[in-house]
Amino acid sequence: MAASPRIDLDRLLGRLDTFNRIGALPGGGNCRLALSDDDRAGRDLLVQWMRELGLAVTIDAIGNIIGVRGGREDTAAVMFGSHVDTVGTGGRYDGLYGVLAGLEACQALNDGGIATRRPLALVAFTNEEGSRFPPYAMGSMVYVSGLALEDAYAIRGIDGATVGEELRRIGYVGDAKPGWLTPHAYLELHIEQGPILEDEGLVIAAVEGITGLAWTEVAITGRASHAGTTPMHLRRDAAYAAAEITVFARRLAQSMGGHQRATVGRIELYPNLVNVVAERAVLTVDLRNTDEARLQEAEQQLAGCLDRLAVQEQVAISTRSLARFEPVSFPGEMVALVEATARDLGLPCRRLPSGAGHDAQMMARLCPAGMIFVPSVGGLSHNVREHTKPEHLQAGAAVLLHAALRLAR
Amino acid sequence: MAASPRIDLDRLLGRLDTFNRIGALPGGGNCRLALSDDDRAGRDLLVQWMRELGLAVTIDAIGNIIGVRGGREDTAAVMFGSHVDTVGTGGRYDGLYGVLAGLEACQALNDGGIATRRPLALVAFTNEEGSRFPPYAMGSMVYVSGLALEDAYAIRGIDGATVGEELRRIGYVGDAKPGWLTPHAYLELHIEQGPILEDEGLVIAAVEGITGLAWTEVAITGRASHAGTTPMHLRRDAAYAAAEITVFARRLAQSMGGHQRATVGRIELYPNLVNVVAERAVLTVDLRNTDEARLQEAEQQLAGCLDRLAVQEQVAISTRSLARFEPVSFPGEMVALVEATARDLGLPCRRLPSGAGHDAQMMARLCPAGMIFVPSVGGLSHNVREHTKPEHLQAGAAVLLHAALRLAR
Repeated sequence: MAASPRIDLDRLLGRLDTFNRIGALPGGGNCRLALSDDDRAGRDLLVQWMRELGLAVTIDAIGNIIGVRGGREDTAAVMFGSHVDTVGTGGRYDGLYGVLAGLEACQALNDGGIATRRPLALVAFTNEEGSRFPPYAMGSMVYVSGLALEDAYAIRGIDGATVGEELRRIGYVGDAKPGWLTPHAYLELHIEQGPILEDEGLVIAAVEGITGLAWTEVAITGRASHAGTTPMHLRRDAAYAAAEITVFARRLAQSMGGHQRATVGRIELYPNLVNVVAERAVLTVDLRNTDEARLQEAEQQLAGCLDRLAVQEQVAISTRSLARFEPVSFPGEMVALVEATARDLGLPCRRLPSGAGHDAQMMARLCPAGMIFVPSVGGLSHNVREHTKPEHLQAGAAVLLHAALRLAR
Repeated sequence: MAASPRIDLDRLLGRLDTFNRIGALPGGGNCRLALSDDDRAGRDLLVQWMRELGLAVTIDAIGNIIGVRGGREDTAAVMFGSHVDTVGTGGRYDGLYGVLAGLEACQALNDGGIATRRPLALVAFTNEEGSRFPPYAMGSMVYVSGLALEDAYAIRGIDGATVGEELRRIGYVGDAKPGWLTPHAYLELHIEQGPILEDEGLVIAAVEGITGLAWTEVAITGRASHAGTTPMHLRRDAAYAAAEITVFARRLAQSMGGHQRATVGRIELYPNLVNVVAERAVLTVDLRNTDEARLQEAEQQLAGCLDRLAVQEQVAISTRSLARFEPVSFPGEMVALVEATARDLGLPCRRLPSGAGHDAQMMARLCPAGMIFVPSVGGLSHNVREHTKPEHLQAGAAVLLHAALRLAR
C-alpha cells in the first residue's frame, strides 16, 4: 500500500514565487487582469505545469482550463481549483493559491503512487475578479450556464476591448463546450480575505455558504452653484446627498447587525471643485447578507433613504443594479467533510460564511460544492500586502488534498 | 454743456457676443482659462477696442491690462474693471461684463463729448479665477503687493506649466511695474453669482464687502479592505469619514446661521471601487463668513470634528490650507455712493455682502473700493447656463458709469 500523500510546502511556495513573477508590481503584489498579456503568461505556465504532472488539459470556449488526472473508474470527477487572474492591485494568494495547492495535491498523489477511484479535475476559471470585465466569476458562470457564451464574449471591459476579442487575442478560446465535465463535487481552497480566523487563532474555516450581494449604482443630480453665494437653504447639493447615503449605509449595517455589510467604496462628483456645490454625484452601495430576507430588508431601507433624500434636498436620484446574487448555502455534507478533514489533521477549524463571492457559488448550481479558507494576515485582501503564513498555506493544501481524496474514494 | 451720457445696450450686447465667440463651448458657455490661447485672443481684442476708443493701454509685468482715458487734471484716476478669464465651464458674464460695461462707459463719455476732472482707468486683471493657476485674484493680488511677482511667476498650474512661462508665451509680460497707478478709488461691476437679488425682485446690490474664506484640504488615510469580508466594527473607512465631514459641514452652517457657508465640493477616493473599503479620501472644505470671529469659530468646530472622527474611525487625518482670506469691508462712502447712484437712476437696490471673492477685495488694500452687483438668473454661476437679463446688464452699466462720474468729478 502507498504511503499517505504529503504536501511539499517548499514546492508549493516555489511555484507561488515563480508564478507571481508574472505581473509582479514594483512595490509588491500582482496585476494579472483577466485576458491581459500577463494573464496569458500565467495560463501558459499553468498549462505547462499541468502537462508535466501528466494531467490531460482541456480549454473550453470561455477559456476555463481543466487538467484531469485519470481515476481507476471512468466516472464523475472530483473537481477543485479557483482562478489565476487578479485585481489591479492584487496580492499573491487570491485565487492562485487554490489552483497551485490543487496542483501540489496532484503531484503529492503522483509522488505517492496513489490512484483514486474517481478522476480528479484541477480547474482555473476565467476572469473571476471581474475587475477588467464585469461581472465577477464570469468563467464559472458561463460553465454552469448562468451566462450565455455569446453574451460573455460581447462584454466590453474598462479599456474598451471585449471579452471575445481578448480571449481570441491571447489564444484561449478552446474547443470544449463550457460545462463539458459535470463533477461529482467541487472544492475550492481560498484565503479568507477577512480577519476572523486570525482574530480567533484558527487555521481552517469550513465555509457554510456565500453571502448574497446587491450592488447598486446611485446617480444624484442636483444643481451646480457657487459655494460662496448660494444660501444653505437654496442648495441642491449632490455631494451632500451622496454623503448622507454613505453615512446611512454605515448606520444601516450597524443597526441590522449579524452578517449585514454595507459599503460605499466609490464616489464621483461633478464638477468636483472646491468652490462649486456639486451638480452630480455617482456612488455605489454594496449590500451583503447571508440571509436573503434580511438582504431584501436592507435594500428596502436604502430605497427609503433615497426617497426621503430626493425630497429633502430637491435632487433627482436614479439607481441601477450592477449585480445581484442571492446567498448560496453549501450542502451540509460538504461543510461537514471539510470540518472532519481539518479535525483529523489536527487543525483548529470553525464554520464561517464567505463575505466575498467565489467560483464555488456558481459551481454550487451544478454539483455539491464546498470551500476551505485559511487565514489572511490582518484580514487584508485585494491589496498588495495580502499575506498568509506558510504554515497556513500548507494546512489548507493538506485539507484540500485529503478532502478531495475522501470525495474520490 | 454736454448731454447726460447714456449706455448703449445694443453696443454692449454686441461686444459681449463678439468677445464670447472666443473660447465658446459647443453647448454654450465659455472656457478662457488664464494665460491660454483663448485668454490671449480675448486680451488682444480688448486691447484693440481700448485703443479704438483712445485709451492709453499699459500692460504690467503680471499681464494686467489698464487703459487710461485722460482727465482734465493730472491726478489720481478712478479705476474700474474686472477680469476676462473664465473657469473651465464658465458663463458669458462672470468678469467680462464688468470690463465691457466699463468700455461702454468710456465710449458713452466719448459720444457725449464729456471730459472728467480725474482720469478714468479701465482694468482687466490677470487670472482672477485661479482655476488653472491658484490662487484666485492673482493679478490684483500682485498689483497690491499681496504676492511677489517672482512667486507668482513660479506658480505651476494644473497642466504643469508655470505662470511665468505662459505669460511670456502669450506675450503679456508688460514693462510696467504692477501697482504703477494708485487709483483715487476702484469700482467693480459684476454679476451677483447668487440668487438673492432675483429672489427679492431687485436690480442692483451695493456690495458691503467680501466674505472671508478658508479653504482646507482634508486627507484621510484608513485601511483598504474587502467590502464583503470585513466586519463593520473592524473597518477604518476613509470614504465613511469623508461622508461624515461632508454632513458635518452642512449641519455646521445650518446651526451657525447668518452668513456662514460650508461646502464640500470635491471628494476623491482611493481605490474608488464598489467592493473595496476606501483606504484614502481627499476632500476640500470651503468655509465662508463675513465675520472673521465667526469664521474662526467655524474653523475650530471643523477641527474638532476631524479630531473626533480620527479617534472614532481609527483613521489618520491631515489638513492643508489651500486659501485663507479675512473678510473685507468696503468703506461706507463707497457703499453709499453705489446706493445713491442706483436710487437716482430709479433702480431698486439693497446692500449685500459678496459670498464670492473678487479683484475688488485686493484693490481695497490700495484705495477705497466698492462693487455693484446685478442679478444672476436662478443664481447660477461658474456654469455654462449663467445668465443676466439685458435690462439688468444695462442697469448695472449705468450705475457704474454714473458712480464713476461722481468719483471723477
